[in-house]
Amino acid sequence: MTPGETLRELRERKPLIHQITNYVVMNETANATLAFGALPVMAHAPEEVEEMASYAGALVLNIGTLSEQWIEAMLLAGKAANRANVPIVLDPVGVGATAFRTDAARRILDETDVTVVRGNPAETAALAGIEAEIRGVESLGAAAEGAELARAAARKLGTIVSVTGAVDHVSDGERSLAVRNGDPLLATITGSGCMSSSLTACFLAVDASTEGAAAALAAFGIAGEDAAREARGPGTFHANLYDALYNLTPESLDGRAKITEA
Amino acid sequence: MTPGETLRELRERKPLIHQITNYVVMNETANATLAFGALPVMAHAPEEVEEMASYAGALVLNIGTLSEQWIEAMLLAGKAANRANVPIVLDPVGVGATAFRTDAARRILDETDVTVVRGNPAETAALAGIEAEIRGVESLGAAAEGAELARAAARKLGTIVSVTGAVDHVSDGERSLAVRNGDPLLATITGSGCMSSSLTACFLAVDASTEGAAAALAAFGIAGEDAAREARGPGTFHANLYDALYNLTPESLDGRAKITEA
Amino acid sequence: MTPGETLRELRERKPLIHQITNYVVMNETANATLAFGALPVMAHAPEEVEEMASYAGALVLNIGTLSEQWIEAMLLAGKAANRANVPIVLDPVGVGATAFRTDAARRILDETDVTVVRGNPAETAALAGIEAEIRGVESLGAAAEGAELARAAARKLGTIVSVTGAVDHVSDGERSLAVRNGDPLLATITGSGCMSSSLTACFLAVDASTEGAAAALAAFGIAGEDAAREARGPGTFHANLYDALYNLTPESLDGRAKITEA
Repeated sequence: MTPGETLRELRERKPLIHQITNYVVMNETANATLAFGALPVMAHAPEEVEEMASYAGALVLNIGTLSEQWIEAMLLAGKAANRANVPIVLDPVGVGATAFRTDAARRILDETDVTVVRGNPAETAALAGIEAEIRGVESLGAAAEGAELARAAARKLGTIVSVTGAVDHVSDGERSLAVRNGDPLLATITGSGCMSSSLTACFLAVDASTEGAAAALAAFGIAGEDAAREARGPGTFHANLYDALYNLTPESLDGRAKITEA
Repeated sequence: MTPGETLRELRERKPLIHQITNYVVMNETANATLAFGALPVMAHAPEEVEEMASYAGALVLNIGTLSEQWIEAMLLAGKAANRANVPIVLDPVGVGATAFRTDAARRILDETDVTVVRGNPAETAALAGIEAEIRGVESLGAAAEGAELARAAARKLGTIVSVTGAVDHVSDGERSLAVRNGDPLLATITGSGCMSSSLTACFLAVDASTEGAAAALAAFGIAGEDAAREARGPGTFHANLYDALYNLTPESLDGRAKITEA
Repeated sequence: MTPGETLRELRERKPLIHQITNYVVMNETANATLAFGALPVMAHAPEEVEEMASYAGALVLNIGTLSEQWIEAMLLAGKAANRANVPIVLDPVGVGATAFRTDAARRILDETDVTVVRGNPAETAALAGIEAEIRGVESLGAAAEGAELARAAARKLGTIVSVTGAVDHVSDGERSLAVRNGDPLLATITGSGCMSSSLTACFLAVDASTEGAAAALAAFGIAGEDAAREARGPGTFHANLYDALYNLTPESLDGRAKITEA
């Protein structure tokens, strides 16, 4: 499928995207999901996550504001998603910053079958056990190292890995794709990484492949390019970003996506 | 009272609107409440909800991101509100999607005296035990069936019922009012239903009646119409919506509200 | 240091600002922190708060949507911050509104060494045991009394106290500074107080003094002035506010800050 075809099918099917995510970005990822064309649902209670995950189109597990109870809910949801063959995106927010986060992310990877890990270079390196310096949750690694990092992490973790930054890299351990869409203003708002994970989940609901994961990042990057055009800073950029996701057409996505083998 | 008179009195009294609501929309409902002219307060700890609810002008119970502890807090707050004669709005977000949500909403209805249930058609039908298909939390039912659904649900639940959609319907089981304000962009942002519940609570603090509930939906719909005018998509619409709520005058509300017997 | 020098150094150092804050404003305070030039991280799990706080540039403890478990996390984080000599800002949201909040804020003050308390007049008065009427969390006290209130509260609490309102007052119990920047639209969005606490923490990471605390309020006020210029209400103002924080230059801050001895 081309990226545009995936977007077209997403909007026709409107899959439910179940997200167990952090408090900081819940509204933002829900709105990004909705603007993109899918239906977001946030639910974290152990009593309901299995039911919800089992009929979702995809599941997002984002550990940005974790607690012990939420880890349990994520494991329950993840296992239910696996039983129902629902793809899972893991966003390892802040892994490497504290032992608690690193352990939680590894436990999710051990106990469930994650489809895509989407992180920044520092988080990805920490999760895969590659030496890296991490500073908060907004760190940006060197773009040049992204391709190798994505490939190495994918082999180590046994998942597709999307490493986002100035250039995004998506790898299944063999093939690697580079995505050269985006705008520096994306790094000035909190939750842009989390949004890219949610949009990855949207596309996986339609096309659970390396290509699908890369296409979602291209779509988000193009929306960032459009949002930046009339932005005067992070606030107006942020508002414009939902407009751009909503107004993105399959044709525009196919014409502007800069996805290459890396 | 006309809708405009209710709005004028709201802004003079500035009642405290206590909201136990979901993580996704807390900021949005707080800002909508504030822009409308009331004072929002979010509090969910069992240790303080009774105190807070007892001196509020109205209480919102929204089950969008539920957990067992929050249900307990909602019941405590609801009972305290009842003792103090404070009107309650129940927003049954996602009822029908999981048994946990359906049970929680029914338990709130059983154990407290709810003034208004505000939901979409699928949630309302599921809560009242009428067969319906529900898909996530953004589902939209057929507008034509809204009036009958609102009436039937109001009789079944023993509350005023507001069913929102392309046309909104508000019924106490006898009388039904239709509200024909709004814009399709309202369905493109998450939390617009939740905001309409919060604004319903604002108006109930001044006029706890079927008319008050309908007037709040008219006001929100008109704000949506104004917000859409210069919007380029969901993001700019969302920002404009608070502007529109803030700039809505009692005169404009009375002149533009499309409320009819249904 | 002049306010502009503090801003310049903040952007060079990009300190991590650890925030244990309320659900309503997490996204807003993270984005304000990021737009200002620092790195926000939200983390509340007892398992990780000590680790996170110990290498932060500053810690924010905001009690806006409190529960018993979060108080424990705040105490753990606060003590770890103290051991690592990391400055702490306490935002006593809604103190005086319920006994639970008042007790929690006092317990934090008793058990940790808070650098700055940033509240509105009613919260500050309630916390310091000065008689005051409190109404919700958006109350505004008389500006004229602010200087005396800040001074008295600082003596009572043994911290720097920032009382924000139409005019802000910052005192260490001896010296008091008045800050006359800002715009009335700041009172129309939820979380503007919380944002001013987060920005205070940003500046304390660079300059943990009365001057640093006052400079942060001047910067936020100037951003409010800039944001108001093209705003049509609270929604567009809110978006513009992040633009203004991001675009604020050290030179502009030094030229426009209205900080005087009070």
